Amino acid sequence: MDDNLIFGRNAVMELLKAGHSVNKILIAEGSRDGSVQKIFSLAKNAGVVVEFVNRDKLDKLCGGRHQGVAALAAAADYSTVEEILELAESRNEKPFLILLDELEDPQNFGAILRTAEAVGVHGVIIPKRRSVRLNSTVFKASAGAAEYVKVAQVTNVAQTLKIFRELDLKIVGSDVSAQKDFRQENLTGGIVLIIGNEGRGMRRLTREACDLLVKIPMVGKINSLNASAAGAVLMYEIFFQRQNDG
Amino acid sequence: MDDNLIFGRNAVMELLKAGHSVNKILIAEGSRDGSVQKIFSLAKNAGVVVEFVNRDKLDKLCGGRHQGVAALAAAADYSTVEEILELAESRNEKPFLILLDELEDPQNFGAILRTAEAVGVHGVIIPKRRSVRLNSTVFKASAGAAEYVKVAQVTNVAQTLKIFRELDLKIVGSDVSAQKDFRQENLTGGIVLIIGNEGRGMRRLTREACDLLVKIPMVGKINSLNASAAGAVLMYEIFFQRQNDG
Repeated sequence: MDDNLIFGRNAVMELLKAGHSVNKILIAEGSRDGSVQKIFSLAKNAGVVVEFVNRDKLDKLCGGRHQGVAALAAAADYSTVEEILELAESRNEKPFLILLDELEDPQNFGAILRTAEAVGVHGVIIPKRRSVRLNSTVFKASAGAAEYVKVAQVTNVAQTLKIFRELDLKIVGSDVSAQKDFRQENLTGGIVLIIGNEGRGMRRLTREACDLLVKIPMVGKINSLNASAAGAVLMYEIFFQRQNDG
Repeated sequence: MDDNLIFGRNAVMELLKAGHSVNKILIAEGSRDGSVQKIFSLAKNAGVVVEFVNRDKLDKLCGGRHQGVAALAAAADYSTVEEILELAESRNEKPFLILLDELEDPQNFGAILRTAEAVGVHGVIIPKRRSVRLNSTVFKASAGAAEYVKVAQVTNVAQTLKIFRELDLKIVGSDVSAQKDFRQENLTGGIVLIIGNEGRGMRRLTREACDLLVKIPMVGKINSLNASAAGAVLMYEIFFQRQNDG
């Protein structure tokens, strides 16, 4: 995480379960139901200091719904693109990557990481500049999935896509003006799914780097989905096609 | 909306396009690019007062990313369940409804409304108590879709589901322990898709009222998706099955 305060029961529990380096667990005085007790014993087993604090203090510290629990964690570990590709190779799978082209919203980033983790994505790539980063809001929104999915920052998206193309990965973006629905396209094989910015979509250069543009059909008046909703629909389609492919 | 301040360019633009009753448009001094000018002319054509305000004032008023534009709008119009069913009938379609069982997060509610609007859902039903309501955060997160999708509040979810059952609607929920993947089930015909609370999922009584529980397959360590991501995946499956069915 760029910052190191993680809060919310699910997020803190996943942090501990994943064995992430945690400096201290904070529990609001009076919180003692099942999941808090489980967090307490996970922390004790991991040798992590637990401090009981005033609920008001926790409110102030977290500035959000902490559900009585917070963790002070070590900084985020970013991976490299090489590590992500090696993970796919070590699993003997064709790469399944997500590239977020200047995504801004930490809630969306967290939700995308959560779905990515669920469908076996090997890694998520974000630009170093003009992009949301791993932080505690992302971690919480990911329900802890941020701990399990590799995230790499790259300086130059166009350059990274060029490398992916040389590796024969299929670069796929979604576009309202695309001809075919995503369900009609072959999305098997090594793939990089691009999810664009919430307001602007993909940048022009990124769009031009796509091998394939797919359309998510819509029958209403609004012509786009929330980035994480669109991401979920497309990731599941890729997931199913890969499963059926062998 | 429960409150009546809407901000963000897409949200304000959709509000005006939809002909929603708007009391005043606020534009930050110095904002004059394309979409702001479009909002200005839409407002003028609709006879809505436009006021240019100090950007700091707008920051304070909105407490969020307003992109230079805000609207003071009339309060939210909730629909009734009857109106939602009538809409389906008037379109000569079998009902496609969403029921949110104590959803809490306005971002999720907004994203769900946006997807619902995209796939032709006739209406979204929420409980009166312990549920997120229509407000400006929801409206913004929906990118304006909240203006086009009917939302009904009900006092008693169990009672409402009983009525739906008597109308032969299929009541479908998702559950990690379900036997079959959602793609293996028949989701055509009149349907009510239930999306549960972000932390607790569906309540026991709601789960027991389901005719069908489906599983969203997952291969990672986290065993659930974000509510709006899960909603998007399921809504699109229903959408495709209905298209192929008719």
